[in-house]
Amino acid sequence: MDYIQRLSDRINSDIAKLDFGTEPKNLYSPIRYTLNSGGKRIRPVLCIMAAEMFGGKYEDVIEAAIGIETFHNFTLIHDDIMDKSLERRGQKTVYKKWDTNIAILSGDAMSVLALERVTKVRNFEVLEIFIQTAIEICEGQQYDMDFERRLDVSVQEYLKMIKLKTSVLLAASLKTGAFLASASSEECDNFYNLGINLGMAFQLQDDFLDTYGNVEKFKKGQLGNDIVSNKKTFLLIRALEKATPELKAQLIHWLNVEIFDGNEKVRAVKKIFDTLHVKEDSENLINEYFQKAETNINNIGVGLDKKRYLTEIVNNIKNRDY
Amino acid sequence: MDYIQRLSDRINSDIAKLDFGTEPKNLYSPIRYTLNSGGKRIRPVLCIMAAEMFGGKYEDVIEAAIGIETFHNFTLIHDDIMDKSLERRGQKTVYKKWDTNIAILSGDAMSVLALERVTKVRNFEVLEIFIQTAIEICEGQQYDMDFERRLDVSVQEYLKMIKLKTSVLLAASLKTGAFLASASSEECDNFYNLGINLGMAFQLQDDFLDTYGNVEKFKKGQLGNDIVSNKKTFLLIRALEKATPELKAQLIHWLNVEIFDGNEKVRAVKKIFDTLHVKEDSENLINEYFQKAETNINNIGVGLDKKRYLTEIVNNIKNRDY
Repeated sequence: MDYIQRLSDRINSDIAKLDFGTEPKNLYSPIRYTLNSGGKRIRPVLCIMAAEMFGGKYEDVIEAAIGIETFHNFTLIHDDIMDKSLERRGQKTVYKKWDTNIAILSGDAMSVLALERVTKVRNFEVLEIFIQTAIEICEGQQYDMDFERRLDVSVQEYLKMIKLKTSVLLAASLKTGAFLASASSEECDNFYNLGINLGMAFQLQDDFLDTYGNVEKFKKGQLGNDIVSNKKTFLLIRALEKATPELKAQLIHWLNVEIFDGNEKVRAVKKIFDTLHVKEDSENLINEYFQKAETNINNIGVGLDKKRYLTEIVNNIKNRDY
Repeated sequence: MDYIQRLSDRINSDIAKLDFGTEPKNLYSPIRYTLNSGGKRIRPVLCIMAAEMFGGKYEDVIEAAIGIETFHNFTLIHDDIMDKSLERRGQKTVYKKWDTNIAILSGDAMSVLALERVTKVRNFEVLEIFIQTAIEICEGQQYDMDFERRLDVSVQEYLKMIKLKTSVLLAASLKTGAFLASASSEECDNFYNLGINLGMAFQLQDDFLDTYGNVEKFKKGQLGNDIVSNKKTFLLIRALEKATPELKAQLIHWLNVEIFDGNEKVRAVKKIFDTLHVKEDSENLINEYFQKAETNINNIGVGLDKKRYLTEIVNNIKNRDY
């Protein structure tokens, strides 16, 4: 079993052992349900990896790493209410399995528990990174909701939104690990930027794969969900930005029409995307962010062998096609 | 102008000056709206008073005090969603003025901003008191929601619920103030207990006044709201606990009946309360908690003149009749 898998298993086992309360059940059961529902644990893995690269110990970082993972899971509970999502990681979302009030409140408690966990490393700088990041994530989610009602979102605004909603927590994970292992402030900043670039690439890729992914492996239902649900992805935003008045009118027609045949809509919108070459724009931007991430990895001041698992993670993300 | 009013004004002015972000507007406007909507600022007032009794300075405590007040206001935003409350402090609740998603998310951000504020005093003990309290408040709110669906809530369970939902934050306010002014750990515990006892008295009194308050001064609509809405107050829980099978059946009838004339229900339920003497039980318990609070004040190891404003606050609460 390889290092990354072992690390992820160890984190899972530590999360399963968390000793927060049991009563009231309606508060704590949804928290356990969410925290133990799996997920790739990419944030704590990155946090611990960064620390270990600089000689930091798992034990000295795990509390912060679990705090970050707990906060991420809290945001999923509340996001699922806001987005009316029915499933998450193959099981019912909390507000569907229990109810909205329980999902609101168990999320609230989880946010505090996340912070409690981060506090255990007894370091105000780490707390400050975490708090700043937590606020930015809320800002990102609000922008995302605001964008749903707008047709004039610019690519720049979109990139800012995904940076806040997704990238900053990956960045904080890496920076926290490096910081707790006493890496220099330049190293910490470099890790932060790596997280930002990796997060941007990942999120843009998520948008890309929903439309252009491998149809046989794609897990989130069928390809084209984002097109059917009018999601403001990079592809759509870029298309709206580039379109001639005529194509824009066509796009807006598809956004507004009551649709019964999703496939027809997906075909039509993809055809517009093709005309505007937004697929290529997306691929270019994704590659740009992956290249920046690779430069960040090159800049880390440790030997190549110490970087190999981090490189492996980035390559795994880069090569996914679904 | 007296000390308490001056203190409260100064806190209000500092809250109005808080420098958190402005964009996205849908995130920050509800936070400002809530924080600047008034309220008695009882928690920060108590926090600063406790500190000043031991020679602590306003400046050294205000960040923690505002953090506590911010957290309290965050809980109101989410509680109002859960309780479907239309108004708060004479203005629309956040989820009514904006929408539920915005209320969830601005509450989430406010909870983090509260913590950010408390972090500014750079003291891990203070942070631990705050985090522990924040978790307990979530537990209390969950018990409160759970109780809505139950008819077998005991008085003991009820007292535990209001302790968590209301008292612990008053207790944490007083203890934090004393702690930051370097009071001994016995003094800190005594302040904590004072907050608990005052909170219990206050919440029981709230229940009491909704049914037996001064009808001409009562602000929350008409008297008897709790009876009309089947709220699990001390009065109702105690009545269900004491009632003969026959009276219990009558009470349950009134809880289940579709009612068009609220007054008729209020009259009928009050009559059952009278038969069971739950008004007296309530008064006795309220007095018991006020007496304990007075003992706590007596035990504070500073001169009487330093305690007079704290005594004034307790007396103001004790003597309210609406």
